[in-house]
Amino acid sequence: MSSAAAIILAAGLGTRMRSGRPKVMHPLAGRPMIRHLLAACEPRFARIVAVVGPDMPELEAAVAPHGVAVQRERLGTAHAALQAMPLLGGHPGDVAVLYGDNPLITGETLGRLLAARAEADLVLLAMRPADPGRYGRVVLGEGGMVERIVEWADANEAERAIGLCNAGVVCAASADLFRWLAAVRNDNAKGEYYLTDVVALARAEGRRVRAVEAPEAELRGINSRAELAAAEAEVQRRLREAALAAGVTMQAPETVFLAHDTRLAPDVVLEPHIVFGPGVSVAEGALIRAFSHLEGCAVGREAVIGPFARLRPGTVIEARAHVGNFVELKAATLGEGAKANHLSYLGDASIGAGANIGAGTITCNYDGVAKHRTEIGEGAFIGSDTALVAPVKVGARALVGAGSVITANVPEDALAIARGRQTVYEGRGFKGKGK
Amino acid sequence: MSSAAAIILAAGLGTRMRSGRPKVMHPLAGRPMIRHLLAACEPRFARIVAVVGPDMPELEAAVAPHGVAVQRERLGTAHAALQAMPLLGGHPGDVAVLYGDNPLITGETLGRLLAARAEADLVLLAMRPADPGRYGRVVLGEGGMVERIVEWADANEAERAIGLCNAGVVCAASADLFRWLAAVRNDNAKGEYYLTDVVALARAEGRRVRAVEAPEAELRGINSRAELAAAEAEVQRRLREAALAAGVTMQAPETVFLAHDTRLAPDVVLEPHIVFGPGVSVAEGALIRAFSHLEGCAVGREAVIGPFARLRPGTVIEARAHVGNFVELKAATLGEGAKANHLSYLGDASIGAGANIGAGTITCNYDGVAKHRTEIGEGAFIGSDTALVAPVKVGARALVGAGSVITANVPEDALAIARGRQTVYEGRGFKGKGK
Amino acid sequence: MSSAAAIILAAGLGTRMRSGRPKVMHPLAGRPMIRHLLAACEPRFARIVAVVGPDMPELEAAVAPHGVAVQRERLGTAHAALQAMPLLGGHPGDVAVLYGDNPLITGETLGRLLAARAEADLVLLAMRPADPGRYGRVVLGEGGMVERIVEWADANEAERAIGLCNAGVVCAASADLFRWLAAVRNDNAKGEYYLTDVVALARAEGRRVRAVEAPEAELRGINSRAELAAAEAEVQRRLREAALAAGVTMQAPETVFLAHDTRLAPDVVLEPHIVFGPGVSVAEGALIRAFSHLEGCAVGREAVIGPFARLRPGTVIEARAHVGNFVELKAATLGEGAKANHLSYLGDASIGAGANIGAGTITCNYDGVAKHRTEIGEGAFIGSDTALVAPVKVGARALVGAGSVITANVPEDALAIARGRQTVYEGRGFKGKGK
Repeated sequence: MSSAAAIILAAGLGTRMRSGRPKVMHPLAGRPMIRHLLAACEPRFARIVAVVGPDMPELEAAVAPHGVAVQRERLGTAHAALQAMPLLGGHPGDVAVLYGDNPLITGETLGRLLAARAEADLVLLAMRPADPGRYGRVVLGEGGMVERIVEWADANEAERAIGLCNAGVVCAASADLFRWLAAVRNDNAKGEYYLTDVVALARAEGRRVRAVEAPEAELRGINSRAELAAAEAEVQRRLREAALAAGVTMQAPETVFLAHDTRLAPDVVLEPHIVFGPGVSVAEGALIRAFSHLEGCAVGREAVIGPFARLRPGTVIEARAHVGNFVELKAATLGEGAKANHLSYLGDASIGAGANIGAGTITCNYDGVAKHRTEIGEGAFIGSDTALVAPVKVGARALVGAGSVITANVPEDALAIARGRQTVYEGRGFKGKGK
Repeated sequence: MSSAAAIILAAGLGTRMRSGRPKVMHPLAGRPMIRHLLAACEPRFARIVAVVGPDMPELEAAVAPHGVAVQRERLGTAHAALQAMPLLGGHPGDVAVLYGDNPLITGETLGRLLAARAEADLVLLAMRPADPGRYGRVVLGEGGMVERIVEWADANEAERAIGLCNAGVVCAASADLFRWLAAVRNDNAKGEYYLTDVVALARAEGRRVRAVEAPEAELRGINSRAELAAAEAEVQRRLREAALAAGVTMQAPETVFLAHDTRLAPDVVLEPHIVFGPGVSVAEGALIRAFSHLEGCAVGREAVIGPFARLRPGTVIEARAHVGNFVELKAATLGEGAKANHLSYLGDASIGAGANIGAGTITCNYDGVAKHRTEIGEGAFIGSDTALVAPVKVGARALVGAGSVITANVPEDALAIARGRQTVYEGRGFKGKGK
Repeated sequence: MSSAAAIILAAGLGTRMRSGRPKVMHPLAGRPMIRHLLAACEPRFARIVAVVGPDMPELEAAVAPHGVAVQRERLGTAHAALQAMPLLGGHPGDVAVLYGDNPLITGETLGRLLAARAEADLVLLAMRPADPGRYGRVVLGEGGMVERIVEWADANEAERAIGLCNAGVVCAASADLFRWLAAVRNDNAKGEYYLTDVVALARAEGRRVRAVEAPEAELRGINSRAELAAAEAEVQRRLREAALAAGVTMQAPETVFLAHDTRLAPDVVLEPHIVFGPGVSVAEGALIRAFSHLEGCAVGREAVIGPFARLRPGTVIEARAHVGNFVELKAATLGEGAKANHLSYLGDASIGAGANIGAGTITCNYDGVAKHRTEIGEGAFIGSDTALVAPVKVGARALVGAGSVITANVPEDALAIARGRQTVYEGRGFKGKGK
């Protein structure tokens, strides 16, 4: 890790998001966008300080354990960055200024930003967008160094034809950066202090400024729900590509949604239409069939999940176990080779190796006040359409008759039946009722 | 609204669709394509007449309350438009001719079409398709006015190089239009009367003709199932874009299918893989989870639906209620804060605020002859795996034991149990049977 | 069929796939990629021989009944092709060399390859990739004949600018081909025998060589899971296009996954998000609703399936029958007009015409040892939440009360009830128990 520090500007409300939530708290691949940026920064920066708005406790918690500075008035990006001075003013190394709504920046780009400081006093990130639109243009001079940034409104036709655009990220020695930040003035139409102005200040001191190019996909801001969706698409693209490269088969990667922390072993097979929430790991050779939804669970080697399976947090599926269609597990362990193939709810349960859970089995785990556990022993056979009223234990190798409501423990090797007797009334059938 | 009238040509059978149904009755986003076009026209035109084929009662009903003219012989587009003369021949304003299989035209484009009549005697819509193919080309002359339309077959190389293509839509003063329509001749290879010929007729009278450009996506015809799918994609793109702009979060908009009338409030969150049928409204802050299917229902504020939930017509989910996985509701109301989280069917039912519906609850609403209602009071607790044989009422705060078959009303504050007793037979378990 | 033979090189392990399985055994649209190539070859070639690696019994079985030659050492593509000489050395016609990991080649392209032999002694397939990268370039000479292939590493700038690339497929008279193959040398960096060298050998004999161009999409190799996913996307694109052209409506073709053998009749309607495994046929006018999963089943005319339906192998849905949400059928027949609309598992069952299967019906078909059948007669009415303990028969027009566990046969026209009696305890309800 370098000795550099990062300031992350994250005070924005994101008016165009039309949301009460701080903009950088909107999630991508299951975690707030600010946490994506922090994850990219953590291996590269010795210190990180986020500049947040007032009354954003949820955001401050998300930034922890990193430092937080509060920007009380919205006076522009240079003003925001300056709020980090009490924390980083005396920082012995470089300081970079990044944006919380640019969460797709990669560690590789941050590394090039920092490395370029060897050749220049101020480094900025630049990009060549497909549509440069109203971005400020980067004017290069001798030796490819940055001459100046020209804002779109002030640019002449030749300048507007420049494809290289300012992405807003800067990096300089701490002392230089804060001196320039303090010198930025707000004599402009909006009366704001703009971070971009440090370029002119550096040039005015005759300093060398360098632009490091990075892909537009890393540097596009997120200012609307549509841009949030586009960023999610980019994150998903990266996650899917990494999974494929690691030896995961996906029949239709574009229909599989991964979380930032989904761990998929080689030779895992994913059918189309699968959604992963956070906290899922899947071991080698497991098959996740179509229309499955997994969150906070571990799937063992060669297990088969779905189609139409739902694994909720706290679920552990051991090796070679099967979870079939319309089956939900929550805080449940399904032992090695056990099967729950049809229309079941298994909550707060542990199911032994080789057990067979019949279709329509339901653990009645909630009595309206508290949750209770169901324990099913190894090799037990739970007949179809059974209700297990927790707390209850079914012993190893026990057999429960179909259609039973089990309210008391069943010993090992016992048979339990709990259902009504059948009565037949001849001639009272369905004839003549029509449909 | 202007005083203009619209003729919509909708008599086509759509041979390439390989379908018995009138082409314009194929649906987009849950309603027939003709109704999309009517919706765009209604704010712009004082009168609308559709020209349909003989024996298309379903189409005539879809067009109501607008006028209908029947084209009995298929003699070409000019002939079709002329069928509207008995209804619109004396119309005091302008008349535009549109196509039922061009349902993606926007009100904005229609507005520009009508406005352009201020500058010309005849206005036509033109487009610049990515692949101009065999479209007729629009030859412009002095002042950018239309000189003539040249059909692809008749065009020389220079004319074929023209990018501006005729989209077929025209607008003129009623008297002019019908005079020209009546003058169109059929001395061509197919012996048909072509609407496009009105351009030459107008020019022959020395009239000014103007082309209004519109995006290809609005003007592409729908002649095959593949083109129908492409049009659906365009409609979905527009609906998703509008929802995002209104403050809806969609993790993966490309996997969410909206109906033409889906109403989504700000800060609604939609996970991937959701299908909306017609008639759905979702209130602020509600979360619709992955793999959910909603039709004809209302979802209240901060309610949570899914994953794997199905809401059928007549369902009302009140604020903060939860519908979980593999749960179906039909003509049912789920009261404020009530929960039905697992594997249930609630049909023809009303469930009071705060009630808890256990996993595997089924309302037996159909006796083979008629549907009957189930009423569950506020704060009731229905144990898991319960069948409620309707008509039946469970009173407020009543408790139903798990695994019960409830056939008689349960009073308020009562406990009801209806299940077999458990019997255990030692040593008769599952040992030795192997799997 | 021509008298030509094909050698298919299929010995590769596909290191970049990171998989133990032979590369050509990875599936596309539900069958191994080698079988796609064989299906394209079978109508065009009188004989087919696959060159496989040692110890690939699964692959040899997939290739059957076609011939197999084993390449014991990995010494290059010419060496691999030469292994087919014992089988094809005396073949009286032409021999083409194809690649098992090029499964998207079409019969039309193979036809053009074979036809071009009329004009040349050696024919090769060429393509113009969007990114020609490091492909060998095809240098054309007089009369558009191939002068030579220049490998990227040996190419000068002008040669690298050539867009036409060698796809590796060749075709020649058997005697010529095997003579050239035997003459290929391995004096190159890797010490391998390259098939491409036959071009130089043919040219050295003054023979005419012709390049037949084909689309890149047919000729791209599959060397990684990402490329496998891209090939799947291409296969799906073709399958969907063919279905649309045949008169199938798909609201969102990009979300529907077809198998190589899915048979869909005209006027079948497919909603979004559907997955077809192998062996499915759907008759005219059937509607498959969203989130459905079908494998090895037949769906009759005007039947309605889903949403959220799962049809497993051996299922037959007869005309106008309905399968609703969260319903699974396996090895089951649902008679004409019968309905199973909610939360049911019907396995190893036959259900008569017009029968009504209530919500939550479960066939208890497995006793831990064997599967047993359930038979339900015509017009029977199975009340909701019923368990049918197989083997069991419910006669025609019989009526089963809701919540029953049926363990004995029910005669025709009889009523059967098998459930506990309801007891009510006043004042012991849910009041006061938390939320």
